[in-house]
Amino acid sequence: MGKFILRVNMSDLSIKKERVSEKYRVLGGRALTSTVVADEVNPTCHPLGPNNKLVFAPGIITGTNAPSSGRLSVGAKSPLTGGIKEANAGGLPAQKLARLGIHAIIVEGEPQEKGKFYVLSLAKDTAVLEEAGELTGKGMYETNELVWKKYGDGVGIIGIGPAGEMLMTNAGVSCNDPENGPGRYAGRGGLGAVMGSKGLKAIVIEQKGPGEVQIANPELFKQGQQKLTQGLLSHAVTAQALPTFGTAVLVNILNEAGGLPTRNFSSGRFAGAGKISGEVINEWAKTRGGKVGHPCHPGCVIRCSNVVNKPDGSYRVAPVEYESAWALGANCEIDDLDDVAELNRICNDVGLDTIEAGCTLGVAMEGGVIPFGDGKRAIGILKEVGYGTPVGRIIGNGTAFTAKAFGVTRVPVVKGQAMPAYEPRAVKGIGVTYATSTMGADHTAGYTVATEILSVGGKADPLATAEKGALAKAFQTSTIFIDATGYCLFIAFAVLDLPDALQGMMDTVNGVLGTNYTLEDMGRLGSEWLKLERSFNEAAGFTKQDDRLPEFMYYEKLPPHNNVYDVSDELLDSVHNG
Amino acid sequence: MGKFILRVNMSDLSIKKERVSEKYRVLGGRALTSTVVADEVNPTCHPLGPNNKLVFAPGIITGTNAPSSGRLSVGAKSPLTGGIKEANAGGLPAQKLARLGIHAIIVEGEPQEKGKFYVLSLAKDTAVLEEAGELTGKGMYETNELVWKKYGDGVGIIGIGPAGEMLMTNAGVSCNDPENGPGRYAGRGGLGAVMGSKGLKAIVIEQKGPGEVQIANPELFKQGQQKLTQGLLSHAVTAQALPTFGTAVLVNILNEAGGLPTRNFSSGRFAGAGKISGEVINEWAKTRGGKVGHPCHPGCVIRCSNVVNKPDGSYRVAPVEYESAWALGANCEIDDLDDVAELNRICNDVGLDTIEAGCTLGVAMEGGVIPFGDGKRAIGILKEVGYGTPVGRIIGNGTAFTAKAFGVTRVPVVKGQAMPAYEPRAVKGIGVTYATSTMGADHTAGYTVATEILSVGGKADPLATAEKGALAKAFQTSTIFIDATGYCLFIAFAVLDLPDALQGMMDTVNGVLGTNYTLEDMGRLGSEWLKLERSFNEAAGFTKQDDRLPEFMYYEKLPPHNNVYDVSDELLDSVHNG
Repeated sequence: MGKFILRVNMSDLSIKKERVSEKYRVLGGRALTSTVVADEVNPTCHPLGPNNKLVFAPGIITGTNAPSSGRLSVGAKSPLTGGIKEANAGGLPAQKLARLGIHAIIVEGEPQEKGKFYVLSLAKDTAVLEEAGELTGKGMYETNELVWKKYGDGVGIIGIGPAGEMLMTNAGVSCNDPENGPGRYAGRGGLGAVMGSKGLKAIVIEQKGPGEVQIANPELFKQGQQKLTQGLLSHAVTAQALPTFGTAVLVNILNEAGGLPTRNFSSGRFAGAGKISGEVINEWAKTRGGKVGHPCHPGCVIRCSNVVNKPDGSYRVAPVEYESAWALGANCEIDDLDDVAELNRICNDVGLDTIEAGCTLGVAMEGGVIPFGDGKRAIGILKEVGYGTPVGRIIGNGTAFTAKAFGVTRVPVVKGQAMPAYEPRAVKGIGVTYATSTMGADHTAGYTVATEILSVGGKADPLATAEKGALAKAFQTSTIFIDATGYCLFIAFAVLDLPDALQGMMDTVNGVLGTNYTLEDMGRLGSEWLKLERSFNEAAGFTKQDDRLPEFMYYEKLPPHNNVYDVSDELLDSVHNG
Repeated sequence: MGKFILRVNMSDLSIKKERVSEKYRVLGGRALTSTVVADEVNPTCHPLGPNNKLVFAPGIITGTNAPSSGRLSVGAKSPLTGGIKEANAGGLPAQKLARLGIHAIIVEGEPQEKGKFYVLSLAKDTAVLEEAGELTGKGMYETNELVWKKYGDGVGIIGIGPAGEMLMTNAGVSCNDPENGPGRYAGRGGLGAVMGSKGLKAIVIEQKGPGEVQIANPELFKQGQQKLTQGLLSHAVTAQALPTFGTAVLVNILNEAGGLPTRNFSSGRFAGAGKISGEVINEWAKTRGGKVGHPCHPGCVIRCSNVVNKPDGSYRVAPVEYESAWALGANCEIDDLDDVAELNRICNDVGLDTIEAGCTLGVAMEGGVIPFGDGKRAIGILKEVGYGTPVGRIIGNGTAFTAKAFGVTRVPVVKGQAMPAYEPRAVKGIGVTYATSTMGADHTAGYTVATEILSVGGKADPLATAEKGALAKAFQTSTIFIDATGYCLFIAFAVLDLPDALQGMMDTVNGVLGTNYTLEDMGRLGSEWLKLERSFNEAAGFTKQDDRLPEFMYYEKLPPHNNVYDVSDELLDSVHNG
């Protein structure tokens, strides 16, 4: 029957198959989830109440054999920011959904019985809601094991851990990877709590083979697919740095630049950076086993993921990303990579976003709850989240919440969401993205770091403020387009530098959709979709005052450059109104 | 030297005496604190950071012998609502400040050493900052005892308990009453946390006698004072109901009207209402000792306060107000007045607003933390606030915070502040005030209940929506004027019904200031000051979406009337823009 939308109503446990309108047909990923949320969700509703909706959508080209294209987009009104939210993840589920012909899943309502959980089980031509039973209350590792045992090896699993079940606003949505670990998270913004509020413990997807993906112009698609693959396999970042060291290759780079937030954003340089870097992960893969160059889904040619083992060579966690190594490491002054990896594993199990969790531990440490640098006690307190103890409830609700609980005023959040691993006072452009993104502080919303630190897509002095509005706008616009395609954002390293790779990406999109989008259309569509997200946020009550960095960054000087954040409010306001 | 402003800088521990400008000379109370906050505080600052300011001001006529005129206004940016905040209280301090010639105290900066506390000691011609020493960490009962011991009987004490020291956003500012109890609270909006962030444990005021209050036109003042006194002593509410039963006379009245919020705002009627009513307080005063008809400051002719003793006749707490009896009683389904009184005492000691505390316990009960109706366990958990345990940190940060911690979506707050003791679905006009007040949900910002339930100042059907915008606007406008004068808001019962009493109030104001304000000026000034407060809130990022009741009230029907809240957004938006 071609593509369809599944509408799952948790109030009456009904499931409807709906035709895809022409408006929605040409959308995918973030463009689709955000459009559905904007069309169907009252912006002032309680994000954990019956009137929010949770939307899942594979990208436009997801399910095809285009390289690195297996992203799943998850959207809703965020209980963390109060605004529109999209987070996306790799792993197995997106490709399987696309190959079942599922254009999107819209979950609405709330279960009659609070605290009761269900599993949505999907296979060719079937979609069933089953009681979650023994899965309820389980961590994601055990959940994945039980699901594979019951539904068979290799099924795709979208799920939430105890944090999501308990409606904690730092709960993420887990996707399993080919090793069945729960490490691929649509982590940000508390979407796991929205899933919890719907009473949905997991979505299980049984699907094998190439499935029913339709390609309007196979010739053009194939041509694009080859160009893009070639680009990804030739660019230094996507072909060498990422498969060799993973994203944590950035630890030493950002530390050198004085932009690695340390000790709850009170310094830009961490003495222990070298010990938690991608270089160590690479070395451990050789000495302990584990892996680097691990793909998070079949068909990824970048393969930036990794598996980090314990000292005895047994499996600990996959992956340890740069953001996680930083958040749970440098930001907490923890320089023991084993402790960092264990914290990462707990996040994966309980169902937490690692960025938010690391920033939360940072403010808890500043509030005197546990000492900075104490990895063992950090592990202890993070485990409490899964138990739902009072301190666990605090930590599980994120950085701003924990800061308020313990009277901490150095709070590294924008729109309530914790900052990622780039200090705005040392990398000014990323601060513009943090401030003006529809998502709250989010490096993946417009990664100016590529240009400011990695000299990809041009060069820009990270400490300069001039032109950073235009830079952030350009990155935000192209990012939302990539987020719509279902490609991994990391293809941007290649497409920014290699015109052929960029054209290849557009060819695959046009090939699938039968459209004739040009590069100008990419900018136009990106702007339109951002505008749609911003309109939702405005209707939810956001103003330009929400497009600001936290006050302390404007008056506290950050070592080693000893800068404050000096991008003007006028520049910030011009980004989306220029 | 006449009146002056004290500027206390906690960063360098300096105190400056400043001349009162002509602009400020004619302001007092809320009009003055809000104007100073609007003039000096950046609306986007962190409310607990160095850039917020805490302002204390007696009213225009405070310190004179006008009846019931001893209110102290406290203002700042609120850590609970994020907007401008004024809360006022009776008790001894305001009159003493006024009689020392202090027009206002502005506290700014923050102490170099976090967690270090000071006492501001004031007497004729002296103002000194002293280290708080042994007072640090003490509850307000012990704090008051120690201060009276050190500084002498009868000094005025403004102070914070452990909740304020720990920067909890439900911390209030205590004023002592003539019995030296800490029961008179400028409770709302977390101003105690602002005081805590300034490192100020207490302000001690040594002052005796009539002091230096200046009256420009003594003749006019005296005439007004007599008219108003006569009115207060003749109106049924101020002369009979309040001195006999205290404010808790309202328990049975609101229960009868179906507007007594019960079990976390899930019903408007409480089976146990009769057991926690003003009638029982009155009876206990006879059988156990204690008091009714107790004035909270010298010169009050209404004397609505009370002292509620333990079963053995020993002192427990003063006062138990309607709001407290409801919040800690009906809203938690607790029908044992001894438990309610003990909860009230804990609030007074730890330094919490009783309304916010009761609503917080209500959502904690709904979240399954403790059972509804269990007074003993409520006492246990409320004590944790003072100890700063994790669950205490949650409860101490108020209703919205606690709801988030425990995943509760029935959250009775506006602008982050908990609702008082009148159900908007049963008393529609007060809902308009809750929604549109600059203060968050606050019955004292525009008490339409007077007309809707008590038939004072006219009559209005509480269940009707028509005209409720105009009613709320009129009440909000006259209220801010009364809050500027330093009169207790309860004079409104008399001045709304008795033209002579109203004229008497205006005569006393004109008498003190040497102005010629008419009744029209009252409306004009009230509107101007409200506009000033709204401008601050807008600059802090508030929009019309903040002028709404919580979503659940729009779709959950409230027994016994089985109504939802059906005042339109258009009506709400018209209140301050009509």
